[in-house]
Amino acid sequence: MKPILVVIFLAFICAYASFAQNFKMDKLLYGVAYYDEYMPYDRLDKDVKMMKDAGINVVRIAESTWSTVEPQEGVYDFSHIDRVLDAMYKAGIRVIIGTPTYAIPTWLAKKYPDILATTSIGPNPYGTRQNMDITNEDFRRYAEKVIRKIMEHVKDHPAIIGYQVDNETKHYNTSGKNVQKLFVQYMKDKFKSLDVINQAFGLDYWSNRINNWDDFPSVEGTINASLKSEFSKFQRKLVTDYVAWQAAIINEYKKPGQFVTQNFDLEWKGFSYGIQPDVDHFAASKALDISGIDIYHPTQDQLTGIEIAFGGDLTRSMKSGQNYLVIETEAQGFAQWVPYPGQLRLQAFSHLASGANMVEYWHWHSIHNSAETYWKGLLSHDFEPNPTYNEAITIGKDFERLSSHLVNLKKTNQVAILFSNEAQTAFQCFGFGWGVSESYSDIVRQMYEALYKMNVGVDFIDPSVTDIDKYKLIIVPLLYAASDGLLQRFNQFVRDGGHIVYTFKSGFSDENVKVRTTQQPGIINEACGISYNQFTVPQNVSLKGDPFQVGMENNQVKIWMELITPHTAKVLAYYDHTVWGKYAAITQNNYGKGIATYIGCLTSNAVTAKILEDAVKKAGIWNIDQQIAFPLITRSGINQNGKNIH
Amino acid sequence: MKPILVVIFLAFICAYASFAQNFKMDKLLYGVAYYDEYMPYDRLDKDVKMMKDAGINVVRIAESTWSTVEPQEGVYDFSHIDRVLDAMYKAGIRVIIGTPTYAIPTWLAKKYPDILATTSIGPNPYGTRQNMDITNEDFRRYAEKVIRKIMEHVKDHPAIIGYQVDNETKHYNTSGKNVQKLFVQYMKDKFKSLDVINQAFGLDYWSNRINNWDDFPSVEGTINASLKSEFSKFQRKLVTDYVAWQAAIINEYKKPGQFVTQNFDLEWKGFSYGIQPDVDHFAASKALDISGIDIYHPTQDQLTGIEIAFGGDLTRSMKSGQNYLVIETEAQGFAQWVPYPGQLRLQAFSHLASGANMVEYWHWHSIHNSAETYWKGLLSHDFEPNPTYNEAITIGKDFERLSSHLVNLKKTNQVAILFSNEAQTAFQCFGFGWGVSESYSDIVRQMYEALYKMNVGVDFIDPSVTDIDKYKLIIVPLLYAASDGLLQRFNQFVRDGGHIVYTFKSGFSDENVKVRTTQQPGIINEACGISYNQFTVPQNVSLKGDPFQVGMENNQVKIWMELITPHTAKVLAYYDHTVWGKYAAITQNNYGKGIATYIGCLTSNAVTAKILEDAVKKAGIWNIDQQIAFPLITRSGINQNGKNIH
Amino acid sequence: MKPILVVIFLAFICAYASFAQNFKMDKLLYGVAYYDEYMPYDRLDKDVKMMKDAGINVVRIAESTWSTVEPQEGVYDFSHIDRVLDAMYKAGIRVIIGTPTYAIPTWLAKKYPDILATTSIGPNPYGTRQNMDITNEDFRRYAEKVIRKIMEHVKDHPAIIGYQVDNETKHYNTSGKNVQKLFVQYMKDKFKSLDVINQAFGLDYWSNRINNWDDFPSVEGTINASLKSEFSKFQRKLVTDYVAWQAAIINEYKKPGQFVTQNFDLEWKGFSYGIQPDVDHFAASKALDISGIDIYHPTQDQLTGIEIAFGGDLTRSMKSGQNYLVIETEAQGFAQWVPYPGQLRLQAFSHLASGANMVEYWHWHSIHNSAETYWKGLLSHDFEPNPTYNEAITIGKDFERLSSHLVNLKKTNQVAILFSNEAQTAFQCFGFGWGVSESYSDIVRQMYEALYKMNVGVDFIDPSVTDIDKYKLIIVPLLYAASDGLLQRFNQFVRDGGHIVYTFKSGFSDENVKVRTTQQPGIINEACGISYNQFTVPQNVSLKGDPFQVGMENNQVKIWMELITPHTAKVLAYYDHTVWGKYAAITQNNYGKGIATYIGCLTSNAVTAKILEDAVKKAGIWNIDQQIAFPLITRSGINQNGKNIH
Repeated sequence: MKPILVVIFLAFICAYASFAQNFKMDKLLYGVAYYDEYMPYDRLDKDVKMMKDAGINVVRIAESTWSTVEPQEGVYDFSHIDRVLDAMYKAGIRVIIGTPTYAIPTWLAKKYPDILATTSIGPNPYGTRQNMDITNEDFRRYAEKVIRKIMEHVKDHPAIIGYQVDNETKHYNTSGKNVQKLFVQYMKDKFKSLDVINQAFGLDYWSNRINNWDDFPSVEGTINASLKSEFSKFQRKLVTDYVAWQAAIINEYKKPGQFVTQNFDLEWKGFSYGIQPDVDHFAASKALDISGIDIYHPTQDQLTGIEIAFGGDLTRSMKSGQNYLVIETEAQGFAQWVPYPGQLRLQAFSHLASGANMVEYWHWHSIHNSAETYWKGLLSHDFEPNPTYNEAITIGKDFERLSSHLVNLKKTNQVAILFSNEAQTAFQCFGFGWGVSESYSDIVRQMYEALYKMNVGVDFIDPSVTDIDKYKLIIVPLLYAASDGLLQRFNQFVRDGGHIVYTFKSGFSDENVKVRTTQQPGIINEACGISYNQFTVPQNVSLKGDPFQVGMENNQVKIWMELITPHTAKVLAYYDHTVWGKYAAITQNNYGKGIATYIGCLTSNAVTAKILEDAVKKAGIWNIDQQIAFPLITRSGINQNGKNIH
Repeated sequence: MKPILVVIFLAFICAYASFAQNFKMDKLLYGVAYYDEYMPYDRLDKDVKMMKDAGINVVRIAESTWSTVEPQEGVYDFSHIDRVLDAMYKAGIRVIIGTPTYAIPTWLAKKYPDILATTSIGPNPYGTRQNMDITNEDFRRYAEKVIRKIMEHVKDHPAIIGYQVDNETKHYNTSGKNVQKLFVQYMKDKFKSLDVINQAFGLDYWSNRINNWDDFPSVEGTINASLKSEFSKFQRKLVTDYVAWQAAIINEYKKPGQFVTQNFDLEWKGFSYGIQPDVDHFAASKALDISGIDIYHPTQDQLTGIEIAFGGDLTRSMKSGQNYLVIETEAQGFAQWVPYPGQLRLQAFSHLASGANMVEYWHWHSIHNSAETYWKGLLSHDFEPNPTYNEAITIGKDFERLSSHLVNLKKTNQVAILFSNEAQTAFQCFGFGWGVSESYSDIVRQMYEALYKMNVGVDFIDPSVTDIDKYKLIIVPLLYAASDGLLQRFNQFVRDGGHIVYTFKSGFSDENVKVRTTQQPGIINEACGISYNQFTVPQNVSLKGDPFQVGMENNQVKIWMELITPHTAKVLAYYDHTVWGKYAAITQNNYGKGIATYIGCLTSNAVTAKILEDAVKKAGIWNIDQQIAFPLITRSGINQNGKNIH
Repeated sequence: MKPILVVIFLAFICAYASFAQNFKMDKLLYGVAYYDEYMPYDRLDKDVKMMKDAGINVVRIAESTWSTVEPQEGVYDFSHIDRVLDAMYKAGIRVIIGTPTYAIPTWLAKKYPDILATTSIGPNPYGTRQNMDITNEDFRRYAEKVIRKIMEHVKDHPAIIGYQVDNETKHYNTSGKNVQKLFVQYMKDKFKSLDVINQAFGLDYWSNRINNWDDFPSVEGTINASLKSEFSKFQRKLVTDYVAWQAAIINEYKKPGQFVTQNFDLEWKGFSYGIQPDVDHFAASKALDISGIDIYHPTQDQLTGIEIAFGGDLTRSMKSGQNYLVIETEAQGFAQWVPYPGQLRLQAFSHLASGANMVEYWHWHSIHNSAETYWKGLLSHDFEPNPTYNEAITIGKDFERLSSHLVNLKKTNQVAILFSNEAQTAFQCFGFGWGVSESYSDIVRQMYEALYKMNVGVDFIDPSVTDIDKYKLIIVPLLYAASDGLLQRFNQFVRDGGHIVYTFKSGFSDENVKVRTTQQPGIINEACGISYNQFTVPQNVSLKGDPFQVGMENNQVKIWMELITPHTAKVLAYYDHTVWGKYAAITQNNYGKGIATYIGCLTSNAVTAKILEDAVKKAGIWNIDQQIAFPLITRSGINQNGKNIH
């Protein structure tokens, strides 16, 4: 079955809604990343002309060429930036300037070898990008200097509409001595006492107890999931702090109306797949005016729109529903991604349908040397028009024409998925066991995809969420580690009339990855009306009597099963197995005014879809769109004129 | 086919037998490992009560918590040990104290970083257990000190019945500079002259010749299987010496009636699978009063009893048939091991049937943090009764009731399997060739399993064996490296009327892993009445005419085939192949008063079973038990009253 | 289908031909490598006797035993060499002396640890051969000294006919500090200016720009394919220089009539598979009098003769058609290679059919210790006659009898395959994309095998070729990186009436691995009459209408497809696919007096064979031999009497 993504942009007058604080755009942006520095010969005028033809109205520049801008320490050369700014300005194309800090120059690596991060596999070699220790003081000093030099030079240029700080920033697994030192200080600040840590983290186990701050060993070799998870949290905080630090520098220079953004990226699985474990997106985006995202996805027969919607919904949720920028997405991309006719167009409008105000390709021209030679841009290496470029021309025209209807589109959803970096990295310490590759993101995506195919609009929330009451239904996949407070809030949400669907392993351990000593699923068992204290790996186990009528294959249970005893809950499915047949697999409980559904095993996509369909219906949000099923996808939002765009 | 392990404990009066020297127990021990140190809150009284309910009469404590006992250098805190000893004594539960040396405290790693062993992949990080260099002098000094402090503190406590030295001790691949130095000294002591080594090890090859002791290179990079194998031998000796060193310290303190033991473990393949290459179990157990073993095995549909019997027979054989302790075995274990109803019971009695005097679970409660969170104990994380615990209650009752009948059970077997660490590690240097994963243990297990399923009781012997004449049949799998003396002894054994079954590659090289220059199979060709000097890898080769009537698939030959020419031997099977059809695959030879069978290729389990059935019959030990086939398993022994327990 | 290699050596009078300059042999050589040093006991006289029986008339000795010859610094022991030389001379067996430099003695590693090369995974340990940094000055000094000592000692011995310098020399990935220093110097010498490099290599990308020679970073971590490829070129030059350096030393001592050779080897894939990426064979063989090769190949049911012919054609081409030596090939080899009766014989004559003047087994006797215990020689470990040795006896007799007919056989071919180390290592930087294992050699071999099975004689040429006009047809697989000059010469070749078959990716980037900015396929598009600027990965794509009539499975397109627009070319095949159906897959263009065929996708072996059949026919070289198809293989050449041997 070949998915057909139908994005019908007919405007219906529907309802007015109040808008959240939002960095509003005056029009839709259609852009490319542009690297004058990489050009094999002078192409600027020709390129600007071709961009204009294609309706390109914004370019991002300068984010990866520190060694060109500062060829030697203290020697600056802004000529590439200047000539591009001038040419674009003249052509009416806007510019986003990126800071060049994610790839360090040769002279800096030579002078301060320690800037190259030490990770668990040793010190990084020079060569690739993102090889530095973002906490290194020399790096920070030189990075700040080059940023300030660039800002001083460009800040008054009228072509500039905003700035991108760094690029797909992560912590790059930096874990050398200085990072360890910072971590110990972080632990002191957070926990105050080693006794607290020893107890909360269970460090008596295997003689890992720390009785003196000076003895605190490197966490590189730790086998303690609590310590490892805390280090992951700390590493994510390094990213948040680093992004905020760069944003603060830019803020000193930026003019009114200009924005600061960042191009976050997702967990990678050959494409933009899932929740990024290395960045706390919600925390890191606080320092930004607009959130941005890089989304690369399968195309051709594999294009479903899921990655576009998933990444978009997540990015829009970073700043509470505010519109966002797709800073990078593929034009041609890898050989296997060359779009079929019409696909580039579908993709562009799909981004808008999630609330994007910009769609920007990476990148304008295909690069003639080095690592990304086969990550092709809008133009091939010959710079000539090609089918993909020709399709972009039509998109540019439509963006121009429809801009006022589609810019600043407002989305209001009644369903949210809770994701948690803490749960993700804690779960990662154990996984499902040997030889099982299913990850946290796999489970989150299973839930997301079921809703996407049901045309149910979704927000993402994380444990920092404060306004869950605006949702009717919350999906909570694999919440392996969570504080008592969060789980109690969920119980309250159900009590107050909300609907929650949990999966297996939720509530299992606390925020320090200590397994709860109380009945499982921890705390939420109250709302779920169930308990279990044994779980196993299913071998030839299915759901008794095919309760969801999905057929034999889809009725199988995979990888994980909890042996659930219902207390007040209704059993939606029992296991079908000689020994485990007396235990419940899936349950539903009326609790207060709401309903809590619990999925105690990994079910097929088909079963999951049925469970969520039931939840959507019971939450009272099943309507006309849900009766249209995948491959027909509808998306909607309210535009700046208050019209509902469908 | 689901295996059913039938262990029928009906007592038949049968025969009297004399007993070997034996550390006798006054009753069956039923125990758990207990970690008061790991408890999230004070559980001691509640736990003792629940243990009593379940018939638990022994606990092992203290073996992994050095950093709790000695939180800083010279600062001791015995409170956890004391309170558990007192509570257990009060409840009539016995205690085995473990020395805490297999996991070092943070302060020790900080003060002496070199204690963390250097292996072929570099220096170990801190974190996991068993990361130390067991030859390091600082480690030894501090380990001795903490052992002595503990012993001085506890030695008079009446709850203690014995001590466990260290835990699953191995050499952990330690190979740093000091180890290299010790190895060179070992080589000097053993071989005296480099010329002897150069010649015996063939070091002229690829210019590896050593002409001066000072030039002796690290063996880390060696490509010489003789050198690598000798280093393995040396590493095993480090373990033997280390265990003896700890035992000697404990022996200074222990009281009459108390024992010293160790929990050896087996080669791991997701469970306790095969012969442990890193420890010379027979040598290392000499320093102990009782041998002990950790056995973890598949359950649910995969429970066959083979691992229990294999590990048990091996451990009983360590000290010439003396009863042993199962120091660790799973209660719930991994998710995939949660026992079906009745399985915990079957398992417990299976251990006894091999001659165990104790069955002890690892561990009492499931741990709430760190690496073994999912290696579950008798209790789940909620400490509440669960189906597994409830079944333990019935086992505890039965142990109590049947104790006098089943304790100190004596096993006398007429069949032995010879295993050899030397052959194992020498074979490992070459294996069967690229891409073939079959290991030494796979071949040993194939033999063992065939006998197990035939209900033939088996002892294990190793090359140090002196009393082979007590056996009627010896199975010799893959004896790749062996001294002339051992092979000549086997020839003599056959000459004297014994029966031997050899597999391929036996006799191939000498104890220095130099291939014999004489006819193959080396030396044993005399008793086998065959020779070969070519071998190949079978491609679509089977046994001519399906001589064992096992059907087409089972009649295939896999992985290895020797092109055997029979001299005096009878050919049991020829190869079926256009070119190799003239060579023998399996032969049998009358030699002196005995019979030697030689299996020249890797046969299916079905063929192997037929060959061994024939051997068992010809050895005159086929009787009623052998006519009951797997999945019906019978086990027998003579109890302390001289009764045969079946 | 079991391949039958029919090598019929009937002499037909056919045509006279002039011979190139050639190191002529007076007779066919049939030899073994012989290691007196490795013998477990004195075997010399017995071995010589058995060699004589088998017609062995040459042995290679001494190439791997530096530590035996120089047991301590400055202490020499030539006794093994002397006794072998004397014994062989007495028996009329000739000797090739190898220099012992490819495996260093323990004392040298001890004294100069830096001689052990540092590679990307750190410093090499001692143990294996070929672990040294061939640029290390201490190594060179000691190597030169031992070579000179040996030469001074043996140079007058009448048994010696030639010398082998080192053994299968490669660069062993040496990349430590001194190598980096040499590389920077090489870059300075070659490119003069960093600006040239920055531009040609595209170093602005990811801030890799180098603005000062002192900043030049180690290339170990580089992500720049141009830099990586240039480093590969430099590493190959190290090998060329090293071989020349050793040859020059030997040349000072060698007598008239003696030769210097080297045993090059091929890319390894469990056997001698493809083009060796680490050595520029054509350049390195310039310093030699005769080229030599080691060929190990599958046998039994997998014997096709392809590896023998491939390696032979390549080695013969190294010195423009001069006869060569097969310095090593298997006798028994690995267990899976034990030859069927008759195969050793087929193999020996196959080597001669490619123009070999010597067939030499590695090795005489199987080794009793260390890494190559299972790489068996003519004799097994028992030194007794065996079927393989017995077959050698018959070969020795035939070689003796047919020597004058078959020695110095001259091959003149009208078809050449162009291979390119530059294209190979440049392509390797990118490959076909994630998860695709097909390599450069796979594509070269696909072409070669099609011609081999068509009985079309083939030479190999590389980009240094100057006399392409002597060929009628040139096959150019995957010429991913090439200079403008080479491609223009090919265009000229076609213009002048030549025929070329190109595959996909040819012409894509220049000699610095910068993708061409002009129409693809770069430069050769002129002769091919096509262009493309998009390519993708085929999913369920075949050739429209099965134009080569190969059946559904063989008609599939795999891994790579270029979306070709024909200009003047005729389309031999279009893609069969909903979207890509309008693009050409395979084209043929009349250009000048010649024809250029372009294969734009990876086709099955069957389709490739049909395309090449067409090309061979159109080049006018289809005759009687081509009508005999594989498994009937014919080979031909002109012997020294001017007779055509078929």
